[in-house]
Amino acid sequence: MRTLIKNALIIPMKNDEEYFRGDVLIEEDKIAYVGESRDIDADVVIDAQHRILMPALINAHTHLAMILMRNYKDDKENLQQWLSEIFPIEDKLNADDILKASRLGIAELIKGGCTTFCDMYFYAEETAKAVREAGINASLGLTLFGDVEDTNDRYEERLPRLEAACSCYPRISINVGPHAIYTCSKETYQSAKEFSEKNGFVINTHMSETEKEVSDSLSENGTTPLSYLKGIDAISNGNMILAHGVHLTDEELETVKECGLSVVNNPSSNMKLTSGALDVEKLLGMGINVALGTDGASSNNNLNMLEEMHVAALSANLKGGKPIKPYDILKMATINGARALKLEERLGTVEVGKDADLILISTESENMNPLNNPFSAVVFSASSEDIKTVFSAGKMVLDDRKLTYADEKEIIRDVNASWADILRR
Amino acid sequence: MRTLIKNALIIPMKNDEEYFRGDVLIEEDKIAYVGESRDIDADVVIDAQHRILMPALINAHTHLAMILMRNYKDDKENLQQWLSEIFPIEDKLNADDILKASRLGIAELIKGGCTTFCDMYFYAEETAKAVREAGINASLGLTLFGDVEDTNDRYEERLPRLEAACSCYPRISINVGPHAIYTCSKETYQSAKEFSEKNGFVINTHMSETEKEVSDSLSENGTTPLSYLKGIDAISNGNMILAHGVHLTDEELETVKECGLSVVNNPSSNMKLTSGALDVEKLLGMGINVALGTDGASSNNNLNMLEEMHVAALSANLKGGKPIKPYDILKMATINGARALKLEERLGTVEVGKDADLILISTESENMNPLNNPFSAVVFSASSEDIKTVFSAGKMVLDDRKLTYADEKEIIRDVNASWADILRR
Repeated sequence: MRTLIKNALIIPMKNDEEYFRGDVLIEEDKIAYVGESRDIDADVVIDAQHRILMPALINAHTHLAMILMRNYKDDKENLQQWLSEIFPIEDKLNADDILKASRLGIAELIKGGCTTFCDMYFYAEETAKAVREAGINASLGLTLFGDVEDTNDRYEERLPRLEAACSCYPRISINVGPHAIYTCSKETYQSAKEFSEKNGFVINTHMSETEKEVSDSLSENGTTPLSYLKGIDAISNGNMILAHGVHLTDEELETVKECGLSVVNNPSSNMKLTSGALDVEKLLGMGINVALGTDGASSNNNLNMLEEMHVAALSANLKGGKPIKPYDILKMATINGARALKLEERLGTVEVGKDADLILISTESENMNPLNNPFSAVVFSASSEDIKTVFSAGKMVLDDRKLTYADEKEIIRDVNASWADILRR
Repeated sequence: MRTLIKNALIIPMKNDEEYFRGDVLIEEDKIAYVGESRDIDADVVIDAQHRILMPALINAHTHLAMILMRNYKDDKENLQQWLSEIFPIEDKLNADDILKASRLGIAELIKGGCTTFCDMYFYAEETAKAVREAGINASLGLTLFGDVEDTNDRYEERLPRLEAACSCYPRISINVGPHAIYTCSKETYQSAKEFSEKNGFVINTHMSETEKEVSDSLSENGTTPLSYLKGIDAISNGNMILAHGVHLTDEELETVKECGLSVVNNPSSNMKLTSGALDVEKLLGMGINVALGTDGASSNNNLNMLEEMHVAALSANLKGGKPIKPYDILKMATINGARALKLEERLGTVEVGKDADLILISTESENMNPLNNPFSAVVFSASSEDIKTVFSAGKMVLDDRKLTYADEKEIIRDVNASWADILRR
């Protein structure tokens, strides 16, 4: 199967600030040609004269099934108060809830132009089912809470289930996800490092999200959160994703840089929960890989990566000084995300040989005219409504804003039924 | 003509945090019934079971025709650098450019759920034509720059044109718009006060947008911008809209409060141009009327009031402390805007006797499920794609995301032709 996308305004995300008009050929699941317009035989030809073509977006930090708690008790004063409302609900969730919620989350991600996400939640094997149904990519978490005994249980009990759910589907990778230093013991983090390095998994953890986390760590551990992990030898070099990182100290940022860790910016969630805003320019200036995430829909309150880019650009500029380049925001949402998840060889740019995870953004709407600078247009002007077509591994998963692989109404109905039931439990 | 909207989830914006399921009857251009579901005769019945019904949004500060410069040289370091790129382009604009750009701006506003805007720009009589074509509301500016001689020219030359363009169309009101203290003389501001009070016009001015504006005022006038206006007796009590106000001092905020002025928050523009963020909670806490605006599309870079609410909520929370209530954000975008523009009797709430300026927001999309709190859903989860229907004075101007009164493609084509021509001039 060969699909030729003709005359698109291509943003390959390969060379800084490059864009050009040309064609992209998809052959099965891969990109087979990117360049000037040519006569190429294809089974399907798409006229993309009025489309921007770019890599599909990568959501590097979310809790997908928390979509159930969207707009639920989201008026709390801070992260801790909000979590105290959320944890009792989470205790009631079952595997079926997670499957249904994951389906909805994936549908929403796709409608926002995203085909890859990094997840931290429970019943990851259920989320894996939903990922396979849609045919997208995910890094799914073996999420760890508490003491090392619980952690060992997870390795022995949950990991085989997750591995079974992912078998023969190379688009899912597994991460080890110790939740946070305030919910996991020292031994859990140490074990996570050992286990992930042995198995080739990435570590995904919350880090320095709030001032309270930092001050609690100072009083409990005598040092700030990442320095604490360093002190207990729980940092896995080049292999670790720090979600949030809003309050990382300068010394810790040096550690991030030296150890080749990635930081995931979650601007909507951080602002919504009054946690603050990551100083993105500072991190980028240091050469740190900064990716972008929505966090869970319960603290965002959506999973719209296009909107997240917009918010990321605005929040980055609050520090004053030179505004962040829209192109740097696009990198955060594409290639930097791929790097964080160690999926750079397959994803994040429009290049021959990479997976055909691509989006077509319409330039026909009011808000995209005049277009002028396409990077600004995507980051600041576009709305998810403009994302007309999404390919994942060459398969069109969104066609003129409609999911191709599932019935949207059924997905939504199922989630609402689950949620009503959860509230009754 | 009677249109009955049945079984909507109604957010009337009349009593704090009130919402209920019921019906709204539109009779000609007015709201004739709001309440529980009843059998009422109507010419048209709309099933709104899956819709939130609320007042159409009010954009209390924009420069509509600057949509031409969307994404144009928007990578400057600050407001001043950016204006130095924009002013030479503005010198080339003609009446026809403004008409075409205004049509596009209005189309984009409507698609974001907005039927009322407060404008500051040139050739306001052309914008008036576009407003009448669409049938929406506007407060159009007699924009003032420079010395009082220029100002008198404006009164004598432009005002009659604007009044002629608005005649017999009660949905347009006129404001007097001295641009800013760094572009207008003392006498221009004094004259604006006198003239607006004589004619019953609102004054609309930029105020304390950037730190530089404040420090320049300190060195040139020996005091901060609003205190300077107070000192020269240029404040019109209860009759003045201050756009931005990011850097108003505590003393100036007392003046705002005492004089009954309104402040328009423009969070996207302020963040984008690294001007900072208004401390909305502080102003609301003082009882100051805070409205919401997009500013021009050239510094936003869209005119999406739904998105602006989202950004406003997030940026308000950056100050830490208790997060702002979504309901307070909805007020900024509806009733507070109506108050600022002195259109409270006609607009801003869903009440019998008011103009039928209403929007229907779908709750059927992925991002609106589960719905849980409808205020959070509108402010944080909704996307403009969810705004399916917009009424302005009882006339459906947007029907299932399509404009009813004009050809969208033609509007866009005309603007692009104008813009290409402007760049050649």
